Amino acid sequence: MLAEIITIGDELLIGQVIDTNSAFIAKELNKIGVSVYQITSVQDDKNHILTAFKDAESRVDIIIITGGLGPTKDDITKKTIAEYFDDALVLDKSVLENIENIWKQQVRQTLLQVNKDQALVPSKAKVLMNPNGTAPGMWLEKGDKVFVSLPGVPYEMKALIHSEVLPKLTNKYHLPFILHKTLLVYGLGESNLADKIETWEDALPNFIKLAYLPDLGRVRLRLSAKGFDKQNVKEEVQKQIDTLLPLIEDNFVGYEDEEGAVELIIANQLTAIGKTLAVAESCTGGKIAERFTSHAGASNYFKGSIVSYATDSKIKILGVPKGVIEQNSVVSSQVAESMAEKVRILFQSDFAIATTGNAGPTKGDSDAEVGIVFIAIATKNGVYSEKFMMGNQRSKVINKAVNKAFEMLLKEIFKN
Amino acid sequence: MLAEIITIGDELLIGQVIDTNSAFIAKELNKIGVSVYQITSVQDDKNHILTAFKDAESRVDIIIITGGLGPTKDDITKKTIAEYFDDALVLDKSVLENIENIWKQQVRQTLLQVNKDQALVPSKAKVLMNPNGTAPGMWLEKGDKVFVSLPGVPYEMKALIHSEVLPKLTNKYHLPFILHKTLLVYGLGESNLADKIETWEDALPNFIKLAYLPDLGRVRLRLSAKGFDKQNVKEEVQKQIDTLLPLIEDNFVGYEDEEGAVELIIANQLTAIGKTLAVAESCTGGKIAERFTSHAGASNYFKGSIVSYATDSKIKILGVPKGVIEQNSVVSSQVAESMAEKVRILFQSDFAIATTGNAGPTKGDSDAEVGIVFIAIATKNGVYSEKFMMGNQRSKVINKAVNKAFEMLLKEIFKN
Repeated sequence: MLAEIITIGDELLIGQVIDTNSAFIAKELNKIGVSVYQITSVQDDKNHILTAFKDAESRVDIIIITGGLGPTKDDITKKTIAEYFDDALVLDKSVLENIENIWKQQVRQTLLQVNKDQALVPSKAKVLMNPNGTAPGMWLEKGDKVFVSLPGVPYEMKALIHSEVLPKLTNKYHLPFILHKTLLVYGLGESNLADKIETWEDALPNFIKLAYLPDLGRVRLRLSAKGFDKQNVKEEVQKQIDTLLPLIEDNFVGYEDEEGAVELIIANQLTAIGKTLAVAESCTGGKIAERFTSHAGASNYFKGSIVSYATDSKIKILGVPKGVIEQNSVVSSQVAESMAEKVRILFQSDFAIATTGNAGPTKGDSDAEVGIVFIAIATKNGVYSEKFMMGNQRSKVINKAVNKAFEMLLKEIFKN
Repeated sequence: MLAEIITIGDELLIGQVIDTNSAFIAKELNKIGVSVYQITSVQDDKNHILTAFKDAESRVDIIIITGGLGPTKDDITKKTIAEYFDDALVLDKSVLENIENIWKQQVRQTLLQVNKDQALVPSKAKVLMNPNGTAPGMWLEKGDKVFVSLPGVPYEMKALIHSEVLPKLTNKYHLPFILHKTLLVYGLGESNLADKIETWEDALPNFIKLAYLPDLGRVRLRLSAKGFDKQNVKEEVQKQIDTLLPLIEDNFVGYEDEEGAVELIIANQLTAIGKTLAVAESCTGGKIAERFTSHAGASNYFKGSIVSYATDSKIKILGVPKGVIEQNSVVSSQVAESMAEKVRILFQSDFAIATTGNAGPTKGDSDAEVGIVFIAIATKNGVYSEKFMMGNQRSKVINKAVNKAFEMLLKEIFKN
């Protein structure tokens, strides 16, 4: 079964909003065995949407539409669906009740006609009740094709995908099992990695595909397999990975979890061995802490972070000796190591990460070169640091430093 | 002039990678007066790409393609372009030189044939030299249509857009001026805002369009205008805004800057008045610090943050009195206010933000309800806090709390 995702909204086409909905939907569809053939973003324009519907219908079996359902958008999607299905809009009482409830409990502002109008749906649509918002989801069928319209607000859309769309699709179609497994490989460039594993890659069975996803300082290596025998697909992929791992040895640091976050490998590992982590961040400015705490369960292992952005705070709050800074510059391995040691003691954690550097775009107080970053890892047994040159683009420097810090910490955890 | 963006890569269609390139390209094209009509993401598949090229050519004038240029992707985009233009691949010496230089200076691993092959380009293409990577950009013309192929790695693509694509497009076409101005409105729902400004909206001239972008706790109100007389477009938009502002009064907190970040309004304001900021974060876990430090110039006003995730660290590092926590619970207005006061003194800043709450998904140590968040703002004149219920989805709670904290701080800054 093939699907197309159509996202509707001028905000996407002027670049004001990044389309994160499509990636989420694609990932969820994949999990139940539906492949996404194409993603199409179109304007809030009836004719453009009608053409997109028609084109998608000729290409795929399932069309998932998000956006264009807000009260001030003139409900463009609903009206266009009604026209496409040669249908009329009718009031759905259960949707109106839902709107009135949300208004009473959460909004507490005047309920206007435009809000009530959100209860109008095409008569041929099956309503997918949206408990988190006023715009309902809609499910329509046309021959053997399915059209699903969802609100564009991410958390409303996500809830409907889980509660309504996936169960209904699984129910309707006999779907294959799709498995993606992604290995995180650090310290090898894309082409050198490809060279190392060429023979293995050439011998992969037809139903397993390989993809290289180069990223800052790492390559993600993805195996994708599809088949109706779930057990067999899983075993075959595992067999291939068992053959692959000896070829890449130390460069392999772990599997990417489903949400795509290397910090979860660290989280799981620390939680499993009952150890804790603290962070002292200068040039990464809180991003390391933010990456860990964005996931549930962080309090099991994450003690906290000190973002010591100003030099003063490295001395007064972290307790880095003033002399160490004066003798070595605030951007130095000595300061990074002292930050890591001090923050580990302050938070009484087992592991600590520290970063100090200049993310640019200009030289700061310290005269440190743009792009230079020192990262230190402290444990109960000691501390060490590495120096990196990470280019001259601020966001790149920060993200690269965060990834590098994760890699160094992971290796340290596996050593212990 | 209309453009279509085609992004190529299976990783987009299985949801492993979010397409951030399209939003960047769309925003940049808009700045020079090119409107994006559609964004299409397709698979690493020759026939699929050929169809996408043909469809796009029938819809728009300019086709911007990203992705499919990596050495292990079998250079699918290049081969497909060659076929589409009935052309052959030839070796470009300057590209090969660039590859060899990058290898020598940055990669320091073996230069393989697949890397050298990246210097093969369609003979009809004008090469857009990529100083940041080995895959060159390509510019091709077909009648009055332009095809531009760019690498998918964001920073390589971005550099080529600025150095090559925008200047060449501006040179080739007589383009109108496009202006987007986005107002940040807090504390009014989408429909109530629409109701308040209905008369004003109805009287907008034809060449100015209005869009509502509801978000967690706020609505972004975007005016988009287009015309060949730049001065006139700017003046007309300003005139409309002058009429609008008295209608929304206090709910208007500022303009969204080009990068879409409310924290930049705070940054500019603090820098302008020479004041500083410190943060104590519990449930927001470093995200407030990260938002500020992701922008250049943060060291002008941002002193630092303490992410006191564990209760212990609120006492030992921040200095919140143990009694305040025991008497009121760690998630309370008293603790939030104490955190804000203590962190302000620790970092000797003018302003401080503190957050404490439970982002979920389960009750933590404190038995605080999921979704409850206290946010405090401290200044030299005192401290105050507010309590919020922010739903039960972790990422939503965190982002809503961050936005709310920015809103509270902004109002406080404007008061001072």
